[in-house]
Amino acid sequence: MPSATVRFVDGMQFVATSGSGHAIVMDTTEDVGGHDTGPRPTELVLIALGGCTGMDVVSILRKMQVHFTRFEMEIQGERASEYPKYFTKIKVIYRVWGDVPEEKLKRAIDLSLEKYCSVSNSLKPRAEVSYEYQINAPSPPSPT
Amino acid sequence: MPSATVRFVDGMQFVATSGSGHAIVMDTTEDVGGHDTGPRPTELVLIALGGCTGMDVVSILRKMQVHFTRFEMEIQGERASEYPKYFTKIKVIYRVWGDVPEEKLKRAIDLSLEKYCSVSNSLKPRAEVSYEYQINAPSPPSPT
Repeated sequence: MPSATVRFVDGMQFVATSGSGHAIVMDTTEDVGGHDTGPRPTELVLIALGGCTGMDVVSILRKMQVHFTRFEMEIQGERASEYPKYFTKIKVIYRVWGDVPEEKLKRAIDLSLEKYCSVSNSLKPRAEVSYEYQINAPSPPSPT
Repeated sequence: MPSATVRFVDGMQFVATSGSGHAIVMDTTEDVGGHDTGPRPTELVLIALGGCTGMDVVSILRKMQVHFTRFEMEIQGERASEYPKYFTKIKVIYRVWGDVPEEKLKRAIDLSLEKYCSVSNSLKPRAEVSYEYQINAPSPPSPT
Protein backbone atom coordinates (compact mmCIF):
# COMPACT_ATOMS: atom_id res chain seq x y z
CA MET A 1 0.00 0.00 0.00
CA PRO A 2 1.69 3.27 -1.07
CA SER A 3 2.26 5.71 1.77
CA ALA A 4 4.24 8.81 2.71
CA THR A 5 4.87 11.24 5.54
CA VAL A 6 5.16 14.97 4.83
CA ARG A 7 6.56 17.42 7.40
CA PHE A 8 6.41 21.20 7.41
CA VAL A 9 9.85 22.77 7.73
CA ASP A 10 9.66 26.56 7.30
CA GLY A 11 8.18 29.16 4.92
CA MET A 12 6.33 26.85 2.52
CA GLN A 13 8.98 24.14 2.51
CA PHE A 14 7.90 20.58 3.22
CA VAL A 15 10.03 17.45 3.32
CA ALA A 16 8.38 14.16 2.43
CA THR A 17 9.58 10.65 3.14
CA SER A 18 8.08 7.95 0.93
CA GLY A 19 7.08 4.60 2.38
CA SER A 20 10.08 3.15 0.52
CA GLY A 21 12.38 5.54 2.44
CA HIS A 22 13.22 8.30 -0.06
CA ALA A 23 13.06 12.01 0.81
CA ILE A 24 11.71 14.77 -1.41
CA VAL A 25 11.71 18.52 -0.76
CA MET A 26 8.69 20.53 -1.96
CA ASP A 27 8.36 24.29 -2.02
CA THR A 28 6.62 27.08 -3.90
CA THR A 29 7.21 30.58 -5.25
CA GLU A 30 8.21 33.66 -3.23
CA ASP A 31 4.90 35.44 -3.94
CA VAL A 32 3.02 32.87 -1.85
CA GLY A 33 5.57 32.58 0.93
CA GLY A 34 7.95 29.99 -0.53
CA HIS A 35 11.64 30.01 -1.39
CA ASP A 36 11.70 27.74 -4.47
CA THR A 37 13.83 25.05 -2.82
CA GLY A 38 11.92 22.21 -4.48
CA PRO A 39 9.25 21.36 -7.03
CA ARG A 40 5.61 22.42 -6.66
CA PRO A 41 3.17 19.66 -5.66
CA THR A 42 1.32 20.04 -8.98
CA GLU A 43 4.57 19.47 -10.87
CA LEU A 44 5.13 16.31 -8.82
CA VAL A 45 1.84 14.93 -10.12
CA LEU A 46 3.09 15.28 -13.70
CA ILE A 47 6.48 13.82 -12.72
CA ALA A 48 4.72 10.85 -11.12
CA LEU A 49 2.71 10.35 -14.30
CA GLY A 50 5.89 10.44 -16.40
CA GLY A 51 7.68 7.96 -14.16
CA CYS A 52 4.68 5.64 -14.09
CA THR A 53 4.05 5.49 -17.82
CA GLY A 54 7.80 5.57 -18.55
CA MET A 55 8.40 2.44 -16.45
CA ASP A 56 5.51 0.69 -18.21
CA VAL A 57 6.67 1.61 -21.71
CA VAL A 58 10.30 0.63 -21.02
CA SER A 59 9.14 -2.68 -19.56
CA ILE A 60 6.79 -3.44 -22.48
CA LEU A 61 9.36 -2.45 -25.13
CA ARG A 62 11.86 -4.81 -23.48
CA LYS A 63 9.34 -7.65 -23.56
CA MET A 64 8.74 -6.86 -27.26
CA GLN A 65 12.54 -7.01 -27.73
CA VAL A 66 12.56 -3.47 -29.06
CA HIS A 67 15.95 -1.82 -28.59
CA PHE A 68 16.10 1.88 -27.83
CA THR A 69 19.10 4.07 -27.07
CA ARG A 70 17.34 7.01 -25.47
CA PHE A 71 13.87 7.59 -24.06
CA GLU A 72 12.35 10.70 -22.57
CA MET A 73 9.01 12.36 -22.01
CA GLU A 74 7.66 15.85 -21.74
CA ILE A 75 4.50 16.26 -19.68
CA GLN A 76 2.30 19.33 -19.87
CA GLY A 77 -0.70 19.98 -17.64
CA GLU A 78 -3.64 22.35 -17.86
CA ARG A 79 -5.75 23.15 -14.83
CA ALA A 80 -9.24 24.57 -14.36
CA SER A 81 -9.27 28.36 -14.23
CA GLU A 82 -11.48 28.50 -11.11
CA TYR A 83 -11.19 26.66 -7.78
CA PRO A 84 -10.93 23.74 -7.44
CA LYS A 85 -8.12 23.96 -10.02
CA TYR A 86 -7.85 20.27 -10.82
CA PHE A 87 -6.02 19.06 -13.91
CA THR A 88 -8.33 19.17 -16.93
CA LYS A 89 -5.85 18.12 -19.61
CA ILE A 90 -2.49 16.38 -19.49
CA LYS A 91 -0.40 15.72 -22.57
CA VAL A 92 2.56 13.33 -22.60
CA ILE A 93 5.06 13.64 -25.46
CA TYR A 94 7.19 10.47 -25.72
CA ARG A 95 10.53 10.79 -27.53
CA VAL A 96 12.40 7.59 -28.31
CA TRP A 97 15.61 6.98 -30.22
CA GLY A 98 16.77 3.65 -31.64
CA ASP A 99 15.42 0.83 -33.78
CA VAL A 100 11.83 1.36 -32.63
CA PRO A 101 8.87 0.24 -34.79
CA GLU A 102 6.09 2.84 -34.57
CA GLU A 103 3.31 0.27 -34.11
CA LYS A 104 5.08 -1.33 -31.15
CA LEU A 105 5.74 2.00 -29.47
CA LYS A 106 2.12 3.04 -29.92
CA ARG A 107 0.91 -0.30 -28.55
CA ALA A 108 3.19 0.04 -25.50
CA ILE A 109 1.94 3.58 -24.79
CA ASP A 110 -1.72 2.58 -25.17
CA LEU A 111 -1.28 -0.41 -22.85
CA SER A 112 0.35 1.84 -20.25
CA LEU A 113 -2.06 4.75 -20.31
CA GLU A 114 -5.21 2.65 -20.60
CA LYS A 115 -4.38 -0.35 -18.45
CA TYR A 116 -1.15 -0.48 -16.47
CA CYS A 117 -0.35 3.04 -15.28
CA SER A 118 -1.89 3.71 -11.86
CA VAL A 119 -1.20 7.42 -12.08
CA SER A 120 -2.84 8.18 -15.43
CA ASN A 121 -5.82 6.09 -14.42
CA SER A 122 -6.08 7.91 -11.10
CA LEU A 123 -6.22 11.29 -12.88
CA LYS A 124 -8.87 10.21 -15.38
CA PRO A 125 -11.65 10.96 -16.07
CA ARG A 126 -11.25 14.45 -14.57
CA ALA A 127 -8.17 14.99 -16.71
CA GLU A 128 -8.17 14.12 -20.37
CA VAL A 129 -4.82 12.36 -20.87
CA SER A 130 -3.51 12.54 -24.44
CA TYR A 131 -0.17 11.77 -26.04
CA GLU A 132 2.13 12.28 -28.98
CA TYR A 133 5.31 10.45 -29.84
CA GLN A 134 8.45 11.09 -31.85
CA ILE A 135 10.86 8.38 -32.98
CA ASN A 136 14.43 9.45 -33.78
CA ALA A 137 13.68 13.15 -33.71
CA PRO A 138 16.48 14.97 -35.61
CA SER A 139 18.13 16.52 -32.59
CA PRO A 140 17.50 15.53 -28.99
CA PRO A 141 16.36 18.51 -26.92
CA SER A 142 19.26 19.86 -24.92
CA PRO A 143 19.10 19.19 -21.16
CA THR A 144 17.24 21.90 -19.28
CA MET B 1 1.05 25.79 -16.63
CA PRO B 2 2.72 22.94 -14.70
CA SER B 3 5.17 20.88 -16.75
CA ALA B 4 8.03 18.42 -16.42
CA THR B 5 10.50 16.37 -18.42
CA VAL B 6 11.28 12.79 -17.42
CA ARG B 7 14.27 10.89 -18.83
CA PHE B 8 15.07 7.21 -18.68
CA VAL B 9 18.50 6.53 -17.18
CA ASP B 10 19.04 2.79 -16.65
CA GLY B 11 17.26 -0.23 -15.15
CA MET B 12 13.99 1.41 -14.10
CA GLN B 13 15.57 4.66 -12.97
CA PHE B 14 14.15 7.90 -14.34
CA VAL B 15 15.25 11.45 -13.59
CA ALA B 16 12.64 14.19 -13.82
CA THR B 17 13.16 17.93 -14.08
CA SER B 18 10.19 20.04 -13.05
CA GLY B 19 9.25 23.15 -15.01
CA SER B 20 10.53 25.14 -12.02
CA GLY B 21 13.96 23.49 -12.43
CA HIS B 22 14.12 20.87 -9.68
CA ALA B 23 15.28 17.30 -10.26
CA ILE B 24 13.73 14.14 -8.82
CA VAL B 25 14.94 10.55 -9.15
CA MET B 26 12.29 7.81 -9.45
CA ASP B 27 12.89 4.09 -9.32
CA THR B 28 11.18 0.86 -8.34
CA THR B 29 11.86 -2.48 -6.67
CA GLU B 30 14.41 -5.10 -7.75
CA ASP B 31 11.70 -7.66 -8.62
CA VAL B 32 10.52 -5.48 -11.52
CA GLY B 33 13.95 -4.43 -12.71
CA GLY B 34 14.62 -1.43 -10.46
CA HIS B 35 17.33 -0.63 -7.91
CA ASP B 36 15.33 1.39 -5.34
CA THR B 37 17.30 4.61 -5.93
CA GLY B 38 14.21 6.81 -5.57
CA PRO B 39 10.51 6.83 -4.69
CA ARG B 40 7.89 4.96 -6.72
CA PRO B 41 5.65 7.12 -8.94
CA THR B 42 2.58 6.10 -6.92
CA GLU B 43 4.28 7.31 -3.72
CA LEU B 44 4.97 10.63 -5.45
CA VAL B 45 1.24 11.10 -5.99
CA LEU B 46 0.67 10.83 -2.23
CA ILE B 47 3.64 13.12 -1.53
CA ALA B 48 2.22 15.68 -3.97
CA LEU B 49 -1.14 15.49 -2.20
CA GLY B 50 0.55 16.03 1.18
CA GLY B 51 2.54 19.01 -0.08
CA CYS B 52 -0.50 20.53 -1.73
CA THR B 53 -2.87 20.30 1.22
CA GLY B 54 -0.04 21.08 3.67
CA MET B 55 0.74 24.37 1.94
CA ASP B 56 -2.97 25.27 1.96
CA VAL B 57 -3.47 24.44 5.63
CA VAL B 58 -0.32 26.30 6.72
CA SER B 59 -1.39 29.30 4.69
CA ILE B 60 -4.95 29.29 6.04
CA LEU B 61 -3.85 28.79 9.67
CA ARG B 62 -1.50 31.78 9.29
CA LYS B 63 -4.34 33.92 7.97
CA MET B 64 -6.44 32.77 10.94
CA GLN B 65 -3.52 33.80 13.20
CA VAL B 66 -3.30 30.29 14.57
CA HIS B 67 0.17 29.53 15.90
CA PHE B 68 1.55 26.04 15.54
CA THR B 69 4.97 24.68 16.48
CA ARG B 70 4.97 21.51 14.42
CA PHE B 71 2.89 20.22 11.55
CA GLU B 72 3.07 16.93 9.71
CA MET B 73 0.93 14.57 7.70
CA GLU B 74 0.77 10.88 7.02
CA ILE B 75 -0.82 9.85 3.72
CA GLN B 76 -2.04 6.32 3.03
CA GLY B 77 -3.32 5.14 -0.33
CA GLU B 78 -5.33 2.12 -1.42
CA ARG B 79 -5.46 1.03 -5.03
CA ALA B 80 -7.82 -1.14 -7.06
CA SER B 81 -6.91 -4.83 -6.93
CA GLU B 82 -7.20 -5.28 -10.72
CA TYR B 83 -5.79 -3.20 -13.59
CA PRO B 84 -6.09 -0.31 -13.97
CA LYS B 85 -4.92 -0.01 -10.34
CA TYR B 86 -5.98 3.58 -9.74
CA PHE B 87 -6.22 5.00 -6.22
CA THR B 88 -9.59 4.14 -4.72
CA LYS B 89 -9.06 5.59 -1.22
CA ILE B 90 -6.59 8.08 0.18
CA LYS B 91 -6.46 9.03 3.85
CA VAL B 92 -4.57 12.04 5.16
CA ILE B 93 -3.77 12.16 8.88
CA TYR B 94 -2.86 15.71 9.94
CA ARG B 95 -0.84 16.09 13.15
CA VAL B 96 -0.42 19.59 14.54
CA TRP B 97 1.22 20.83 17.72
CA GLY B 98 0.70 24.24 19.30
CA ASP B 99 -2.16 26.53 20.33
CA VAL B 100 -4.50 25.22 17.64
CA PRO B 101 -8.29 25.45 18.02
CA GLU B 102 -9.89 22.29 16.65
CA GLU B 103 -12.63 24.15 14.74
CA LYS B 104 -10.09 26.30 12.91
CA LEU B 105 -7.94 23.34 11.96
CA LYS B 106 -10.95 21.45 10.67
CA ARG B 107 -12.10 24.48 8.68
CA ALA B 108 -8.62 24.88 7.15
CA ILE B 109 -8.47 21.21 6.15
CA ASP B 110 -11.97 21.26 4.64
CA LEU B 111 -11.18 24.42 2.64
CA SER B 112 -8.03 22.80 1.31
CA LEU B 113 -9.40 19.39 0.37
CA GLU B 114 -12.69 20.67 -1.03
CA LYS B 115 -11.65 23.91 -2.70
CA TYR B 116 -8.01 24.93 -2.86
CA CYS B 117 -5.94 21.79 -3.29
CA SER B 118 -5.41 20.99 -6.97
CA VAL B 119 -4.04 17.55 -6.22
CA SER B 120 -6.87 16.20 -4.04
CA ASN B 121 -9.40 17.58 -6.50
CA SER B 122 -7.56 15.95 -9.42
CA LEU B 123 -7.74 12.55 -7.71
CA LYS B 124 -11.44 12.80 -6.87
CA PRO B 125 -13.93 11.36 -7.59
CA ARG B 126 -12.03 8.17 -8.48
CA ALA B 127 -10.35 8.25 -5.09
CA GLU B 128 -12.34 8.86 -1.94
CA VAL B 129 -10.17 11.34 0.00
CA SER B 130 -10.75 11.24 3.77
CA TYR B 131 -8.90 12.68 6.73
CA GLU B 132 -8.26 12.55 10.45
CA TYR B 133 -6.45 15.04 12.63
CA GLN B 134 -4.62 15.04 15.94
CA ILE B 135 -3.80 18.15 17.92
CA ASN B 136 -0.93 17.95 20.41
CA ALA B 137 -0.64 14.17 20.23
CA PRO B 138 1.23 12.97 23.38
CA SER B 139 4.45 12.02 21.65
CA PRO B 140 5.43 13.07 18.16
CA PRO B 141 6.14 10.05 15.97
CA SER B 142 9.86 9.48 15.72
CA PRO B 143 11.40 10.29 12.35
CA THR B 144 11.39 7.31 9.98
